[in-house]
Order: sequence, then structure tokens, then C-alpha cells
Amino acid sequence: MWDELWTGARLATMVADPAHAKPYGAVEAAALAVAGGRIAWLGPQSALPGAPADLAGAVHDCAGRWITPGLIDCHTHLVYGGDRAREFELRLEGASYEEIARAGGGIRFTVAQTREADEETLYNAALPRLRAFLAEGVTTIEIKSGYGLSLEHELKMLRVARRLGANEALTVKTTFLGAHALPPEFDGRPEDYIDAVIAMMPEVAASGLADAVDAFCEHIAFYPEQVARVFEAARAAGLPVKLHADQLSDLKGAALAARFGALSADHLEYTSDEGVRAMAASGAVAVLLPGAFYFLRETQQPPVEVFRQARVPIALASDCNPGSAPATSLLLMLNMACTLFRLTPEEALAGITRNGARALGLQDSHGTLETGKAADFVLWDIDHPAELAYRIGFNPCHQVVKDGKVVQGG
Amino acid sequence: MWDELWTGARLATMVADPAHAKPYGAVEAAALAVAGGRIAWLGPQSALPGAPADLAGAVHDCAGRWITPGLIDCHTHLVYGGDRAREFELRLEGASYEEIARAGGGIRFTVAQTREADEETLYNAALPRLRAFLAEGVTTIEIKSGYGLSLEHELKMLRVARRLGANEALTVKTTFLGAHALPPEFDGRPEDYIDAVIAMMPEVAASGLADAVDAFCEHIAFYPEQVARVFEAARAAGLPVKLHADQLSDLKGAALAARFGALSADHLEYTSDEGVRAMAASGAVAVLLPGAFYFLRETQQPPVEVFRQARVPIALASDCNPGSAPATSLLLMLNMACTLFRLTPEEALAGITRNGARALGLQDSHGTLETGKAADFVLWDIDHPAELAYRIGFNPCHQVVKDGKVVQGG
Ligand SMILES: [Zn+2]
Ligand SMILES: [Zn+2]
Repeated sequence: MWDELWTGARLATMVADPAHAKPYGAVEAAALAVAGGRIAWLGPQSALPGAPADLAGAVHDCAGRWITPGLIDCHTHLVYGGDRAREFELRLEGASYEEIARAGGGIRFTVAQTREADEETLYNAALPRLRAFLAEGVTTIEIKSGYGLSLEHELKMLRVARRLGANEALTVKTTFLGAHALPPEFDGRPEDYIDAVIAMMPEVAASGLADAVDAFCEHIAFYPEQVARVFEAARAAGLPVKLHADQLSDLKGAALAARFGALSADHLEYTSDEGVRAMAASGAVAVLLPGAFYFLRETQQPPVEVFRQARVPIALASDCNPGSAPATSLLLMLNMACTLFRLTPEEALAGITRNGARALGLQDSHGTLETGKAADFVLWDIDHPAELAYRIGFNPCHQVVKDGKVVQGG
Repeated sequence: MWDELWTGARLATMVADPAHAKPYGAVEAAALAVAGGRIAWLGPQSALPGAPADLAGAVHDCAGRWITPGLIDCHTHLVYGGDRAREFELRLEGASYEEIARAGGGIRFTVAQTREADEETLYNAALPRLRAFLAEGVTTIEIKSGYGLSLEHELKMLRVARRLGANEALTVKTTFLGAHALPPEFDGRPEDYIDAVIAMMPEVAASGLADAVDAFCEHIAFYPEQVARVFEAARAAGLPVKLHADQLSDLKGAALAARFGALSADHLEYTSDEGVRAMAASGAVAVLLPGAFYFLRETQQPPVEVFRQARVPIALASDCNPGSAPATSLLLMLNMACTLFRLTPEEALAGITRNGARALGLQDSHGTLETGKAADFVLWDIDHPAELAYRIGFNPCHQVVKDGKVVQGG
């Protein structure tokens, strides 16, 4: 009756439980069945309605391994041209700002490299990064544009993101981040560039290449009034929004995102209590990016305890990008969220499963082990789910199942 | 005439060059030949004394890939029983000290688990950790005892370390760390335990299972006078020493290590200028452990600039251990050393090649690409050596050669 059945498992369902009766939503001595790419049944193995071999076309014995939902990275800039290793080195060698600029530093270097690259080049550069995520059990990833900064090059980036999703065994959600930085041809004319981004919006929406719209709200990027204009255009185009907010200063980005019903506000190191309350009221997810915090050696912590008290869902993501987080390990982000932001391992794991799904608007279909949801899950060689956050630079992924099919491991 | 030849390579020889004429000791458009497990020739490919196919039994085209020396992790506690994931979780959940102790926290938990485990269990637990290092191009690793704390269990740990070296394609250097912590049966009697460690020394030396002797010099472990007694016993037994020094306070551990001609002093966050001078005079290597610094959220930086000025060689290591650095990625340590300690990528790479070898007394045979040295090297899918330090959680290892044999990759 079922396609495949996993027995002898321990499930970390990650289903939300305000009473916290079972950490990780755990079900021990469990089984999980898949049919038509979805989870068809799960529960204690003793409650199976028959002998395993009679119930499914194939039976996998998990030998006590833990199963979690497939991991979700809800904030990446995975597609880009070039890298910034040389800039990283020059900074550490004490080069001056001018020397770095001459050697091609900063986001404009990435913009130039991304514009120069054709689709194939961008695809081939992104693929090994994507596969590093896949190897750790990531089954859904968000990929932003934002280094093209013109309709042509933004669409090029989004097409590469879509192709990665079509060719690899994972779900890709794309985000149009035209308002990421001011391109050189608009120097001194940020309002004109915002007009240009707004003018791109209908074509971006019509292309079907973007699932959402993002912007970078910061003194070094765009001001709230400019972001608001972009968000109005997104709303007019029928696209949900999210925001890079309050990373380096409190521009009240969280509240702005909440006002537009954003899926998420991301970074949030400087978000005020007021901003948290606005997010709680709107239902926005707080996406924390510990890799960027680490790489930039920031010291201002996001207000984790305030988010907890306000019951704002906390997600985690890699922020994978060449300038401030050249990170391709979502498991490492678990450890960094615990070590640097003092999340618990269970909160951290929820951040890359249940709450990561919510940050992408996928909460009804992904992010937890529940009957009817997509059969995206990972088997781990661990004795306790906390190990996923505790270890540093270790990948205990045993098997990955995407839409009910084994796509990695035995 | 040669066994195998690698052509079309870029070599980061990592040969020391005070003039710093060629960063990374680089040779571009290069070839490298292997005979009898050693590097038989290297240089610009144009200087090869004939056509590649005539010169060696097998020719590998590197397609422009970079080759570095095999990576060396000169400080690990890779062999241990159990893990401390649950302790990590309890701390983050705000558990009290008593609750954690009841749940089995601290080094004594690891000691108990290690004593309970038989050799097979310890071996099987260590193997996946070791393989994580191998996958990143580690060809030499140091493994300490120190969770047995009795002759029987210390020798058991060292035997496991030796077996790992015998069975896997890497060189294992072992270290007897009897003076790591006070075992429970010696509570309140540290001097008696030091006597016991000294009594173990002749048998440890006679067993041939230990290549060096280490101790943990700290208020929470052993005082300098106690360490000195252990070091005298090591000297009498003919074993070189090294020291966990000045990690949490300045007990003048660096100077103590130098006084005994130690191979290295390790951690060194609190080392004074005087300690650095003593190390410079004695030739001890400064082994920095950024993973422990990160995991413990320390803020006191090791005096990197003072080490530089004094020309003390700086090595890096993972400190892989269950309590303060459950880390199994040496590449991540490169990034952490740059990000947290402001080493340059070149200094960091020297720390896990040339200076890592020196910290193990292997400077004449390992750690650089030079004719006559062991043919331990790694081919990388990178465009610049700085990428190894720049990326976070990415493994661009393409091929590993150990003693002249391809042991990983095509
Ligand atoms: Zn971002
Ligand atoms: Zn150590």
C-alpha cells in the first residue's frame, strides 16, 4: 500500500509543541512510510497496521538512526561570479582600503564578476557550493539574485537558481534582490536606481523566476523609505517580501518588514523591542545569520531572548555569499547559533527545519515530519539530535530522501 | 626513472622564505615527481629533463590545480569514549552546574566513558572523526591520551591511536598526556597523582606507544611545579615534551615548556612577552587552537604579533576533543585562525604544514614540498591558496597522495 517504509528509527518530527512535552517532537522506536512522494504514515512502529514487508514495496531498517526533516536554508546568495578570497587575504595582510579597492574589493567586485559571467559559468561555480549543502541533508534552499543589479543580469541569476533546482534533488526558492546595492552606473542616484528596480518588478514577476522580493535596508545600502517603495511594487506584482534588516544599525527594518507582512526579517542584530513586537504581531520569522556575525566579527547579538518571549519563530540560515559569509555548511550554522547566539540545539534545529520552512512560506508542506507533508527527510548517524549542533565540521548524514526518493546514501 | 609524475600544477611548497619573495613558496606551471615514496623532483615543468611520459611510470595532469603539502594536525584528543553533546545542550538550556554534573558533565564524564570502553569501541568511535580529517587532506595527525589516567587505560588509548595510524593512510604521532586531569580516585591528592604519572613513565616509554609527553598546566589542572616533575621524568625516559600552556591564565607555562626544550607550547592566549621570548630562544613552536577559543567563547587573544616579531613559528591545530572543541575540520581552523586571531591565510596554511611538522619534530621529513621529503601532498580545486582559509565549511580537496601513493581522489 505504501511505496517505501523506514523502520527502527527515532524521529525528530520537529512538530511545534508549546508544552514541550517531547523535545524535538521525538518519537522513538518509530516507523515512517512514504507514498506518492509524501509522508503517508508515521508513529511508533508497534502501531503499524501489519508486518512491514506487507505494507510497502521496500523496507529500510534504520538501525536506531535518527530521522529529521530535510534541512532548509532559507537565506543564501549562492549564485555569484568570482570569489573574494584575495580580498580576505589583503585585509589580513593589512592592505589599505585603496589597495583593496584597486585589487577589486567589495560587493562591486562581485557585481562586475557576476555581470561578466554567462549562465553556464555561474551555474558551474554555484554547483559545488550547492552540493556541499546537499551532502549535509539540505533539501530546500533559498537563492537570491542581487549581484546583477540590472534586469538582464538579475534574471540571469534567477534562471541559474531555477536550473539548479531543476537539475539537483532539492527544492529551490528564488528571491529577487534588486535592491541589494547601488550599481556603479547609478552612483549618487539611489532614488533613480530604486525607480529602476521598481521598473524591473513587473517583468521579474511575469517571468515566474522569483518567488519573493528582498532588499537590503542599511546605511550602506538603502533607506527604509526606498525599501518601502520597492515593497509596494512587490505587493503590486503579487510577490511576498522579506528584508535584510537591522544588521549593522537599527533603521527599524524589522518593523518595516512587519508592516508589509514580510515572510521574514533577516540578520536583526540591532532590532529593538518595538521591532520584535511588530514582527510578533505580523507573524514574520526572525532569520538569524550567525555565519555573517562570525565572519564580520560582530559583537552586537540579536535579541534572542526577546524573540523567545514574543514567540517570534526563529530560523537560521547560512547567508552563503562571497563577501560576508563564504559558508556552505548549514550544520556549522547550528553550532554557531548555539555557540555565538546561545540558541539551544533544539531551537537551532527548528531554525533549519520548521521555522526555515515558514520563512519561505512552505510551512504547510515542508519543515516537519507530518503525514501529508513532502517526504523530505534525513537519516543521521547520531545518538542524540543535540549532536548535530554540538559537533564542528562533521557531517553524520547517512541518507537523504527527497520527495520520497532516496537521493543520497544507501 | 620516477614512479609517478604530476604535471600542470601550481605548487604551494610552503618552504620558508624570510624574504617573502614568493608567497606560499609558489612555483607556477610546475611538475612534481615521486620515487620510493619521496619527492624526487619538483620545479617548473619546463625544466623537466625530458618528456613526462619518458620520465615516470604514470603521469597525472593537474589541470592547473594547486598542490600543497599534506595537512598536519599537531594537537588532537581524537580518541575518547562517549561525547558531550548532552552537556552542551544542558548548558544552553540553562541547567545548573549540579544538574550537568548529575547528567555526567565535564572531563570526568569522558574519563569514565573512556575507561569503560574497550579498544574496539574506542577505535570505532574515533575512526569516523579521523576520516573527516582524512577527507580534507590531513596526512599526519597527533593523538594524545589523557582520558585514561591510569597506566592500563592510557596505554589502551595509545594503542588505539597507533592502530589508527597502522590501518589508515596517514602518519599518527602519539602523545602521553597522563597529566591531563586529576582522576576521581586521587581527589585532593594531586601530588600523589603526579607521582603515579611519573611511575607510569618508564612503562609508557618502554611500550614504544608514545612519541612525546604532554601536560595541562592550568589552575584547573596541574601547577608548573607538578608539570616540571612530569617533564623531568619524560626527559629521563628519553621522550620529548610539549605543554597545554597559558590557555586561561598566565602560569608562565610557555617559559616552562621552553625551559624543557619542548617541541611546542599550545593554546597561549595568556602568554606574556617574557614567555614568547623564552620560546623564541628555545625554538618551541606556538600551537594556536582557534576551535577551543571559539567554542569556549574566549576573548583573550594569543599574542600573535609578539610571536611574529620574535619569529616564533606558529602552528594551528584542531584540538579535536569532546569538551572544548568537538571539531573535525582542519580547514575550518584555517578560517578561524584568520577570522578570530587575524593570521594571514599564508601564515595559517604554514601552521598546518611547515610549522605543524616542526611541532611534531617532523620538520626534516614533512611539512613542505621539497626534494627528499615524504611525498605527502594534496591537490585542490582552487584558484588561489587563500581560498583554503577564506571558505567556511567547504572541502575543495581533489586528490590526496600519502608516501607517494594516491590514497584519495582520481
Ligand atoms: Zn544576505
Ligand atoms: Zn588539547
